[in-house]
Amino acid sequence: MDTNSETLAVSENKRIFDDRNNLIERFKTVRNFSLSICKPLKTEDYVIQSMPDVSPTKWHLAHTSWFFEAFILKNAIKNYKSLHPQYSYLFNSYYVQIGERFTRAIRGLLSRPTVEEVYIYRNYVDENIINFLQNCTENELNEYGPIIEIGINHEQQHQELMLTDIKHVFSVNPLHPVYADKYPPMVNYVSELSFKKYPENIYKIGNDGSEFGYDNEFPKHKEYLNSFGIAHRLITNSEFINFIDDGGYKKSELWLSDGFASAEKNEWQAPLYWEKVEGEWWNFKLTGYHKVDLNEPVCHISYYEADAFARWTGYRLPTEGEWEVAAGDIVIGGNFVENEYFHPVAVSENRNKQLAQMFGDVWEWTMSPYVPYPGFKTLPGALGEYNGKFMSNQIVLRGGSCATSVTHIRKTYRNFFYPQNRWQFMGLRLAKDE
Amino acid sequence: MDTNSETLAVSENKRIFDDRNNLIERFKTVRNFSLSICKPLKTEDYVIQSMPDVSPTKWHLAHTSWFFEAFILKNAIKNYKSLHPQYSYLFNSYYVQIGERFTRAIRGLLSRPTVEEVYIYRNYVDENIINFLQNCTENELNEYGPIIEIGINHEQQHQELMLTDIKHVFSVNPLHPVYADKYPPMVNYVSELSFKKYPENIYKIGNDGSEFGYDNEFPKHKEYLNSFGIAHRLITNSEFINFIDDGGYKKSELWLSDGFASAEKNEWQAPLYWEKVEGEWWNFKLTGYHKVDLNEPVCHISYYEADAFARWTGYRLPTEGEWEVAAGDIVIGGNFVENEYFHPVAVSENRNKQLAQMFGDVWEWTMSPYVPYPGFKTLPGALGEYNGKFMSNQIVLRGGSCATSVTHIRKTYRNFFYPQNRWQFMGLRLAKDE
Amino acid sequence: MDTNSETLAVSENKRIFDDRNNLIERFKTVRNFSLSICKPLKTEDYVIQSMPDVSPTKWHLAHTSWFFEAFILKNAIKNYKSLHPQYSYLFNSYYVQIGERFTRAIRGLLSRPTVEEVYIYRNYVDENIINFLQNCTENELNEYGPIIEIGINHEQQHQELMLTDIKHVFSVNPLHPVYADKYPPMVNYVSELSFKKYPENIYKIGNDGSEFGYDNEFPKHKEYLNSFGIAHRLITNSEFINFIDDGGYKKSELWLSDGFASAEKNEWQAPLYWEKVEGEWWNFKLTGYHKVDLNEPVCHISYYEADAFARWTGYRLPTEGEWEVAAGDIVIGGNFVENEYFHPVAVSENRNKQLAQMFGDVWEWTMSPYVPYPGFKTLPGALGEYNGKFMSNQIVLRGGSCATSVTHIRKTYRNFFYPQNRWQFMGLRLAKDE
Amino acid sequence: MDTNSETLAVSENKRIFDDRNNLIERFKTVRNFSLSICKPLKTEDYVIQSMPDVSPTKWHLAHTSWFFEAFILKNAIKNYKSLHPQYSYLFNSYYVQIGERFTRAIRGLLSRPTVEEVYIYRNYVDENIINFLQNCTENELNEYGPIIEIGINHEQQHQELMLTDIKHVFSVNPLHPVYADKYPPMVNYVSELSFKKYPENIYKIGNDGSEFGYDNEFPKHKEYLNSFGIAHRLITNSEFINFIDDGGYKKSELWLSDGFASAEKNEWQAPLYWEKVEGEWWNFKLTGYHKVDLNEPVCHISYYEADAFARWTGYRLPTEGEWEVAAGDIVIGGNFVENEYFHPVAVSENRNKQLAQMFGDVWEWTMSPYVPYPGFKTLPGALGEYNGKFMSNQIVLRGGSCATSVTHIRKTYRNFFYPQNRWQFMGLRLAKDE
Repeated sequence: MDTNSETLAVSENKRIFDDRNNLIERFKTVRNFSLSICKPLKTEDYVIQSMPDVSPTKWHLAHTSWFFEAFILKNAIKNYKSLHPQYSYLFNSYYVQIGERFTRAIRGLLSRPTVEEVYIYRNYVDENIINFLQNCTENELNEYGPIIEIGINHEQQHQELMLTDIKHVFSVNPLHPVYADKYPPMVNYVSELSFKKYPENIYKIGNDGSEFGYDNEFPKHKEYLNSFGIAHRLITNSEFINFIDDGGYKKSELWLSDGFASAEKNEWQAPLYWEKVEGEWWNFKLTGYHKVDLNEPVCHISYYEADAFARWTGYRLPTEGEWEVAAGDIVIGGNFVENEYFHPVAVSENRNKQLAQMFGDVWEWTMSPYVPYPGFKTLPGALGEYNGKFMSNQIVLRGGSCATSVTHIRKTYRNFFYPQNRWQFMGLRLAKDE
Repeated sequence: MDTNSETLAVSENKRIFDDRNNLIERFKTVRNFSLSICKPLKTEDYVIQSMPDVSPTKWHLAHTSWFFEAFILKNAIKNYKSLHPQYSYLFNSYYVQIGERFTRAIRGLLSRPTVEEVYIYRNYVDENIINFLQNCTENELNEYGPIIEIGINHEQQHQELMLTDIKHVFSVNPLHPVYADKYPPMVNYVSELSFKKYPENIYKIGNDGSEFGYDNEFPKHKEYLNSFGIAHRLITNSEFINFIDDGGYKKSELWLSDGFASAEKNEWQAPLYWEKVEGEWWNFKLTGYHKVDLNEPVCHISYYEADAFARWTGYRLPTEGEWEVAAGDIVIGGNFVENEYFHPVAVSENRNKQLAQMFGDVWEWTMSPYVPYPGFKTLPGALGEYNGKFMSNQIVLRGGSCATSVTHIRKTYRNFFYPQNRWQFMGLRLAKDE
Repeated sequence: MDTNSETLAVSENKRIFDDRNNLIERFKTVRNFSLSICKPLKTEDYVIQSMPDVSPTKWHLAHTSWFFEAFILKNAIKNYKSLHPQYSYLFNSYYVQIGERFTRAIRGLLSRPTVEEVYIYRNYVDENIINFLQNCTENELNEYGPIIEIGINHEQQHQELMLTDIKHVFSVNPLHPVYADKYPPMVNYVSELSFKKYPENIYKIGNDGSEFGYDNEFPKHKEYLNSFGIAHRLITNSEFINFIDDGGYKKSELWLSDGFASAEKNEWQAPLYWEKVEGEWWNFKLTGYHKVDLNEPVCHISYYEADAFARWTGYRLPTEGEWEVAAGDIVIGGNFVENEYFHPVAVSENRNKQLAQMFGDVWEWTMSPYVPYPGFKTLPGALGEYNGKFMSNQIVLRGGSCATSVTHIRKTYRNFFYPQNRWQFMGLRLAKDE
Repeated sequence: MDTNSETLAVSENKRIFDDRNNLIERFKTVRNFSLSICKPLKTEDYVIQSMPDVSPTKWHLAHTSWFFEAFILKNAIKNYKSLHPQYSYLFNSYYVQIGERFTRAIRGLLSRPTVEEVYIYRNYVDENIINFLQNCTENELNEYGPIIEIGINHEQQHQELMLTDIKHVFSVNPLHPVYADKYPPMVNYVSELSFKKYPENIYKIGNDGSEFGYDNEFPKHKEYLNSFGIAHRLITNSEFINFIDDGGYKKSELWLSDGFASAEKNEWQAPLYWEKVEGEWWNFKLTGYHKVDLNEPVCHISYYEADAFARWTGYRLPTEGEWEVAAGDIVIGGNFVENEYFHPVAVSENRNKQLAQMFGDVWEWTMSPYVPYPGFKTLPGALGEYNGKFMSNQIVLRGGSCATSVTHIRKTYRNFFYPQNRWQFMGLRLAKDE
């Protein structure tokens, strides 16, 4: 989910946490996880913005803290004093009603506050939040608890962005810094692609409020779907290389018009981070430069590349409704950030062609533009200010990635990016009319 | 319909014309209408490309002729000799399989062929086509007749573009050239806005093949719609000025994020062609500079402006499905190019709140991104090469405009433009959940 | 001379014409010559602006007329009525004190006034000027005569631009229109390059006012020059091809830093209008596409290319002072626009290594930035408003070209263009320290 | 001196240092001074590139070390082993013959090597250089001593850039970091401007080789100058504000054409770092935000602003020859970097209108384009590779600034920047014809 386009949670005014202590623990756990993500970094790594889509790590750390300050502390605590009067200006991302913002594209020009000062800021906010949660009344808990919940989810989104952004920062450095060095077991065989079939029907799509959800997942609503099939696994690097070798990037008839223009302008000839060295494909991962693993799911491709690949195969991408129907009651599990591989992994066994890799590994491009569900409503006030404002020109992705927390994802989760974006862990699964 | 994004007709291999003579007559009629559109022009007017979206009039005249040459004459007539070997290169627009193309953005740099030479080219093509149609076998007629039909519709699309492009060309000229001078009767009263309600249901959307249609209208398919209401008329200039006067262009909370960025970057403060002079709004029409008529439908607004206006009212734009359901079995009629007003006109009477202005006047922005219908298929070969290739980043518009021919429009017709486009005759009608 | 950078004549308040009738005749002759330049053009050719540096021919025709209107008729004739109130806005080029101007870069977007209307405008101005000159008092003649003289020279500058601009317009057209078809006699032999030596001395540089001159040629002043040598002829295409074949365009050590950046950015690999076809160099001339003639002077190169070529040879370009000293009392003659070759020609004989081609053929790049002479003064008022304002970032060229009138050039004439410009007839002559 | 445009020293093959120990001491002193400049910086401050002209401080530290490695250690020491194989690629600035370079505009995207690693690199180079100088033969000393000298001067240039670059980095940060806090004594009175006159003569300009000089100062040569006057002091902020208040930035007639375009495009309304707050001018200095001191020399203006100001006064800028003549045998002294004010200061007394502020305070824009002196020669090899390559489009400045070392400047020193540059300490002194 683009930081430009964070959406905010709504849970039908229902408490989605068990009790006060539970909430405090989850707050601490998630806040600490941000720090653990930064462990491998040098001070200088926190500062860089390698392209406009990327934010410096220290900005992510400060912005997620500012969120709790702006939406909880400043409202809930009388005479709350912020650590620095300018932080609100520097670390607000887009909430216009909250005040002026520092221009996104030049976040990488700020040497101050220093990383150390940002950590002080985080501690300051954490202490105040925990103190508040420990001592607030039940009424206050009922009022601010859901916003804490949003803040927790908001921080988890930024944790994913921290990883994808630091990957981009490292990738532009000729010294090829290495972020991590844990590897999954080798997989030598990937099962042949098959499709699972679903019948024509009126399906119910969206979040019914029984679990936490962002506003864009509501309301649950009816959708008429023709019968369709969905591939039992993700597309692999091997399959994508076949597309490349067949001249896929040069065959305009496979591409959306805007996509082909984008490919030409940006000189795309392979997924982002790939490089051909002496006839072999290498790619940059958070674990360093490696030969492309043929059995891993293909990753870091735009919607346009996913769509062109699908057309090349004769199939298509699924709609987001189809994906959600297929996700059905699959138990959430897979290759998430908790695995610490920081890269999609090959399916480790042939599961009798059960649907595999639906969650984790890569966000899966659907063919659905990101638009409001029928009956969609925005929330009042700054928190809900922009709920619908990103609903143009973007495409829905589903399922979470190797940089997503397993505690963050759900089958109704709608992520969205511009069709030309590639720096997230993005891949594809095929679908077809049946 | 964007010239970048012409789609091509398919009619399920069915003859959609009665007989040979009828087809010849329709061919002649439409080809002549292109010439009649050019009557008010000076030679110099044919040459100008005032922005990349605009093509010079002489390019339109040549390109529509090239179409018949490339898809009929070169295939159907043995040893057919084109008038000039380079014309195919110059006047191909985007059919990559047909060969290389002259870059669109610099069509306005070509002084040659001259206008006179383009007319000679048109005559040459016309004579060959008519000759062929008069003399071909029934088999040939069955094969090429549907392509003639596409060529006729293709030319009609370009006739609309000729008008909108020449309007833009004239608009940048400080001398304010006047194209036409026929005016509709004055209307002093516009009925208060009301909504017509439609029940929740599974509806059938799309063209069933009983009349001609472009491929993007197929297949007819089921869609589940919640109950909805649709406004009985278009939004007027008067209503849009209220939005402006309320600071609508400055209130970011009303806008899609990309839309507000577009408004800021392009300094939009009113519809295209509007100018505030001494406290009053004036606009440039094909009939010259005039004070804005408050009762006319608002026109030349982007999707972003239409969407922001709708949010300001508390309503929304209709989906294309809703629009098509509402269009139901309304008889096609209204203010089309045949009226020669070349501008939308106010509703001339209060029709008991029947749905008015559904056809003609302005293309109506829907809230639907332009995507393939479920089961959509492209045609083989160059003609079908790009049927789906414009299905990203664009928005569907419905109903035709004052620059569309009444013989060209139908209720299943899907026009599409980028959300930032404004130079077509584009306006809006509100909708709501019921 | 760039139309951005026309300078204006000053003649030390001296009458530089003999008498009233003579002035009228010269006015008519020069005005008619503009029309004769347009003879080969179609109406459409007058309208195109193929790059920002280029102006449409009809703009040149109107602008040169506007000059006489703005600086003579509006001042000298009581109640003078311009033909159209907007022409002054459209055809003013840069004289800010005269009023607002239509943006230069979009002169090519104007279809109106038509070519015919521009001709009517020219006639209107001509009649008024001639009538004024025939009937004005001697005092008026003394006052306005020098401005007529400036206007005549101003028109001659634009005649050269009309030719170079129409050449560029034709060059971007894949149909390769031909402007003229007169060819010079073939030359089979070019004499070996030699240098003529001049001693160290204090020289006098600049115009002493005994003939007409632009203000930038004044005052005549002393300059200390070391001894130097100057090549007896221009560099030929053959010599320039040696530079190309030696990889000259790729050897950064030969280039000014800004020049190499310009060459890379614009992908220069040969002079403008050159194209390599199956191993042979072809170039576009006003006489059409031809194989490059090896003995002709090289033409359409930027200052950067001239400088890199000179460094490659081990020599250098001359300073403008050196060039003027060398021009000494050479009688003006050579290949000017009156020859109607519209391209530089090879030296037709070996002239015992006398200085050849100093005048005509190509403007010769010097190594002198365009700066004011010591003691330079601007004139009061709009005419003199901008005399010095182009004296930054441009380089002086000397000697006139095949598109210059022999009646317009003189040895003190300082032309100037940006170092990256190539569309004028620009070439080079070597010099060296002795 | 632009880092794009460093020139390299040549001293006519003469040893310009006394002895081995002296050279070692000067090497140590200058190298240490770079570190002392960094004292006030946080790690994060070293990383930022706030605009393309600016380099990150850690890049300067590494690049100046690389210089000694590339031109001394790699040649003089057998089997010299660089600390990291990629550093040569990362820290080469423009010496093409030395190998590929990392693109200048994205130096700010590198988090690695870290600041600590760069310090280790510096130490490594220092130890090797000192070891070499202590142990090399006299022949080696004669060969490499002059290059050490160039390296020392090269480092001093970068010390000035480090200060101007860090100033720019701090200036874009809304937190307004403060670099230093030493202030000069207040000055309440600045003497009225007067001009010192010099007679018409043939003067000798340039470095005669009796002291160290860059190649662009050679050879000493004769120049003919008319009589001229030069102002006895720099222009003050007070005088520049008069220009602003008179609408100087809006009066196109005062500006060079390119300058006015630059002012409009960049929205210049005052010197760089100035801001009007509630009717008063404030400016950002390395000592923080302060009200503009009226008596200080104006600073951070482009050539275009200096030129427009001069035209507004009726005077002009001096040529570089005039400046050098005026500098005559003035003893070098003034407000240099050793003062640690890091900003120009007001003249502290009325010196009977003796020439004041000729050295230090601000680099003074001359009206002379940066071109080679007559007889200029480049050195062979990479060191001399680019001696002349910056001699286009730039303007000469003279005299050094408050960020220059007093040990680095001399009267023949030719600094040069593009006319639109403003981030160096640049100001102006008037001159006139006499």
